[in-house]
Amino acid sequence: MHTVFSDGRVWPTIRVEEAWREGLDVIAITDHIEYRPFRQDVVGDHNRSYEIAKPLADKLGIVLIKGSEITRAMPPGHSNALFLKDCNALDTKNYMDAFNEAKKQGAFIFWNHPSWWNQQPDTTLWFKEHAELLKNGMMHGIEVVNGGDYCELSHKWSIEKNLTLLGTSDVHNPIGMDYDLANGERRPMTLVFAKERTEAAIYDALMNRRTAIYFQNKLIGNDSYLKPIADASIRVERVERNGRRVSVTLYNNSSVPLTLTKVKGNDPNLAFFREIEIKPHSFINFNINETMETKADRFALKLEVSNFWVAPNKALPYILDVVESQRLSQQ
Amino acid sequence: MHTVFSDGRVWPTIRVEEAWREGLDVIAITDHIEYRPFRQDVVGDHNRSYEIAKPLADKLGIVLIKGSEITRAMPPGHSNALFLKDCNALDTKNYMDAFNEAKKQGAFIFWNHPSWWNQQPDTTLWFKEHAELLKNGMMHGIEVVNGGDYCELSHKWSIEKNLTLLGTSDVHNPIGMDYDLANGERRPMTLVFAKERTEAAIYDALMNRRTAIYFQNKLIGNDSYLKPIADASIRVERVERNGRRVSVTLYNNSSVPLTLTKVKGNDPNLAFFREIEIKPHSFINFNINETMETKADRFALKLEVSNFWVAPNKALPYILDVVESQRLSQQ
Amino acid sequence: MHTVFSDGRVWPTIRVEEAWREGLDVIAITDHIEYRPFRQDVVGDHNRSYEIAKPLADKLGIVLIKGSEITRAMPPGHSNALFLKDCNALDTKNYMDAFNEAKKQGAFIFWNHPSWWNQQPDTTLWFKEHAELLKNGMMHGIEVVNGGDYCELSHKWSIEKNLTLLGTSDVHNPIGMDYDLANGERRPMTLVFAKERTEAAIYDALMNRRTAIYFQNKLIGNDSYLKPIADASIRVERVERNGRRVSVTLYNNSSVPLTLTKVKGNDPNLAFFREIEIKPHSFINFNINETMETKADRFALKLEVSNFWVAPNKALPYILDVVESQRLSQQ
Amino acid sequence: MHTVFSDGRVWPTIRVEEAWREGLDVIAITDHIEYRPFRQDVVGDHNRSYEIAKPLADKLGIVLIKGSEITRAMPPGHSNALFLKDCNALDTKNYMDAFNEAKKQGAFIFWNHPSWWNQQPDTTLWFKEHAELLKNGMMHGIEVVNGGDYCELSHKWSIEKNLTLLGTSDVHNPIGMDYDLANGERRPMTLVFAKERTEAAIYDALMNRRTAIYFQNKLIGNDSYLKPIADASIRVERVERNGRRVSVTLYNNSSVPLTLTKVKGNDPNLAFFREIEIKPHSFINFNINETMETKADRFALKLEVSNFWVAPNKALPYILDVVESQRLSQQ
Repeated sequence: MHTVFSDGRVWPTIRVEEAWREGLDVIAITDHIEYRPFRQDVVGDHNRSYEIAKPLADKLGIVLIKGSEITRAMPPGHSNALFLKDCNALDTKNYMDAFNEAKKQGAFIFWNHPSWWNQQPDTTLWFKEHAELLKNGMMHGIEVVNGGDYCELSHKWSIEKNLTLLGTSDVHNPIGMDYDLANGERRPMTLVFAKERTEAAIYDALMNRRTAIYFQNKLIGNDSYLKPIADASIRVERVERNGRRVSVTLYNNSSVPLTLTKVKGNDPNLAFFREIEIKPHSFINFNINETMETKADRFALKLEVSNFWVAPNKALPYILDVVESQRLSQQ
Repeated sequence: MHTVFSDGRVWPTIRVEEAWREGLDVIAITDHIEYRPFRQDVVGDHNRSYEIAKPLADKLGIVLIKGSEITRAMPPGHSNALFLKDCNALDTKNYMDAFNEAKKQGAFIFWNHPSWWNQQPDTTLWFKEHAELLKNGMMHGIEVVNGGDYCELSHKWSIEKNLTLLGTSDVHNPIGMDYDLANGERRPMTLVFAKERTEAAIYDALMNRRTAIYFQNKLIGNDSYLKPIADASIRVERVERNGRRVSVTLYNNSSVPLTLTKVKGNDPNLAFFREIEIKPHSFINFNINETMETKADRFALKLEVSNFWVAPNKALPYILDVVESQRLSQQ
Repeated sequence: MHTVFSDGRVWPTIRVEEAWREGLDVIAITDHIEYRPFRQDVVGDHNRSYEIAKPLADKLGIVLIKGSEITRAMPPGHSNALFLKDCNALDTKNYMDAFNEAKKQGAFIFWNHPSWWNQQPDTTLWFKEHAELLKNGMMHGIEVVNGGDYCELSHKWSIEKNLTLLGTSDVHNPIGMDYDLANGERRPMTLVFAKERTEAAIYDALMNRRTAIYFQNKLIGNDSYLKPIADASIRVERVERNGRRVSVTLYNNSSVPLTLTKVKGNDPNLAFFREIEIKPHSFINFNINETMETKADRFALKLEVSNFWVAPNKALPYILDVVESQRLSQQ
Repeated sequence: MHTVFSDGRVWPTIRVEEAWREGLDVIAITDHIEYRPFRQDVVGDHNRSYEIAKPLADKLGIVLIKGSEITRAMPPGHSNALFLKDCNALDTKNYMDAFNEAKKQGAFIFWNHPSWWNQQPDTTLWFKEHAELLKNGMMHGIEVVNGGDYCELSHKWSIEKNLTLLGTSDVHNPIGMDYDLANGERRPMTLVFAKERTEAAIYDALMNRRTAIYFQNKLIGNDSYLKPIADASIRVERVERNGRRVSVTLYNNSSVPLTLTKVKGNDPNLAFFREIEIKPHSFINFNINETMETKADRFALKLEVSNFWVAPNKALPYILDVVESQRLSQQ
């Protein structure tokens, strides 16, 4: 996120308060080192936005990560360096000096918006400079989502090259100018599977690829992370047979909508939906109609969670296990 | 739409008031002939829902079309017959008698939800019964959208077999229970390109395939209808050159968001967005960056309007003609 | 609430589903006995709307109270009778026969909308007929709120004559047509302080005046009910002294906004707000500025909760006890 | 409004873009002269916030007024000076020097938030210093509304002392943090009745008391301004007699809700509502019931517009002239 200390248009504390209002746990302000259009009026050094925001973050219980955006021409383009100790040290002439310094400080570094039209107008290329950064331990992750854009190629690279997936807002305006918060729209977020709510634990998770991305009501990540989320979110609330019609109530116990889509291989004796969406913290009813009555009290429906993406164009497979159960609880 | 006179759960006048509040011009109530679960308590005949709703429709200036849903097993499944004179005459034992009667009354008839899982669980088939209805002038249109579902195969058939495209809500609940109106969600609608706001003109338009579908912020229809809508919606508001950067402001003069996506064949000297969305009645800014300064004052950008679908998986091609222009008006 | 079985415009099950979606516990459908404009088409008797709605209420865990609206000219005007056994028995020529029957069935009876312009255009009178009903145990409660209207005189009478306070929607349309649910608007509700979630316990509470009214972000009722609600809702989250400035964070642990207004009698050495509003489930910060530093670690601020009405034009007095405390938790 | 150049938390251009998105015509940034907590990092002088915001204001067609907040202890407390030429000249030791300078520059000066608890904890006093400023032509207006607070005493003074009424947001955060814009909440605004959209015309209107205040769905101002607004907003759309019942449809042709309340002196033969609210750009129906049929085709109903305040606790009187008329147009 950006502030008036680079080309953002808010004071650093606003980033903390916005995050707190949205219920976020961890944020990073990564003002540009090399691009500070307000420099005539805003004179603090590259550590200032962090220093100004930190007391409020502490008060509100938000973990604030210190970082900077290394802002260079393509290749290698822009990268974020997180967990820096002194951002000023990255203000160097040659980009490799900045990356060396970030590495020396132990930073977690990721390539920003590889498919940004401004630097890659028509094609998204992996340059030899990126191969070198990767080889030298100066690229640990990659933005698969930046603001409103999902990059399929970045997603593919994150899998092939073993890079941490990141989804960021890259926000410059007050967040409410870019996202319709009152109507439920949310910024992209990186879900970090950390063992505790500390900088050290978050660092460990990021360095070890334990992330997924929340983006426009989708989750993007490895199935080892998305499968447990799906399991914990979908609950069969009630199953009631009435002759050849089995009525099923599902509950979505998460804050993301879930789209369940039928895939091939289901029992041809069973007719049920082709696709349903369960809104967050909501119930939905559907019927399974049997061509011939089976009196079975258990069904395994072959589905996928089509808004959970485990790879480009590949949704999470999901078996819905329907068993007779208890009565519907209050919403 | 349905009312308590079949399996809907509202009184007929509610359908008129809901339509009026949403600003619709024309609606049809098509209660099921063969399915009336509330018959023990609601005893009026098949013309009653129309008769009850008509005075309010007249008062509020809504054109109310009389119709019924012919509700049979697959094949041929369900069909709507509009512009009926006497709905009771369709209450017959054999489905062909009902279609014959509808045809005799001059009805516009369309096949409802061909891919409904309840009647076609895994595949969407075109039965010989549908071929026969089509041949006999008893199928003029087809639902490409029903409630939350778009059917790709229906879209394909509408083109191949020259059928009128329809998008319907098929609503049974109060509309506000199924659509989040306050947050801008809208029911699917059929846009009818009629020469005037009369039943006769609407009949003529429907019989002659002059429709498109509005569905979840997309328009679906023939390019001869979608192209003029795109032209009338997108306005270049301001073009300002600053060295090699040309700043462009677009305005979306419609109530549908517009997604503009770059396609192949653009001038390699020009770098600009890959995809932008312009919200309804809103402005957006983007830059065209030139590799070498051209001093051109006109650019033809090759795009598509990716939420305007002219065929399954085919968006409307669009050339954005950018010319130097006047100042930005108030939003 | 009303359904198509009197002059409402929805099927009875809709009232149950609406209530379930809004999280209500208990509802009553009270169709008019004497006014049934849809009688030509809707032929069921006065018990039918209850019978139709009951199975869904049971399934969704909503307590559905059987009742009717006795609908007569003024005096005595309209009254609701709840907990009826057979609504048909109230269909009598003389109103006193209907009240006698309701009493015989053990009903809880309350006077509806005493100040309704249609029956009392300019003045709100208590007729001798009302005195008689009260004396004969045929008036246990009174509507202080009906739909959008609060009646000051009814509020006064409820206190003077020891009547149960009721706030009702009296809804005829789908609820979402009359209330902007998506933006947080809610129908008026009677809060019933029952010992358990059963018809018997609710009956006991209503008969013994254990209610308050929720209406347009206000609570209306006896201070013996409103005081514990205020106590349980307002939490001092953090107190931090900085010289002569004491910064206080409050949390509103309820789903109603709370307006705190300073009253007379505060320590003149302390300057603080004149009025603040704390939104539901939200934090607010305010400062207490001391003219002379006291180093006190406890303050008793004299306030009132100005949206909690214990009598006409009388708000609930409230002492805010501010003591040094722990850190701010996540929203 | 405030920016990072005093204690606001946004860059000056954000104030312009916020205003443009809300459809405002004229704004003023009035950063504090004497209170600049971010001075260590933000070093520009008192004219900078204006200079930075001006180019965007010009581009978007917003009239941006240059001003400053003279920020002193009570008395005289805080005042805004608008239409300044050089804000730096107000940075003086004694407050009278600042006011003298503002007057010399021809500024329009108004007293801010007279009842602010921080400077007037329990009482709102008019000090001799204010009398002096008024006498010397250094107080032309007064804030009757500041943010969420309406001050009854300021309203009274504005009338008695012939001061221009002002309603301001005094916003420090991004506007969307303080106002729920998506749900229709709006900041307080001063309506300026200027002859054209120029600085000179606005100056003339402000200096000559031609304003009213929009605040939380109320209008506050002299009846000579509110009466024409009411007349232009309320339209009788349809009048239809049915025996002794006359059905009337009203339209509110404004963006403010209108509350019409019956007052004394109406014809006792006519029964109609006690109070109705017409939402912005919406229709409402009501009935006039006659005790005896008059066959009159014209009625003059004595009302007040109770959310239009012409003085403290005094609403705008309004005669609703109901005459037979044409059919209801589309919403």
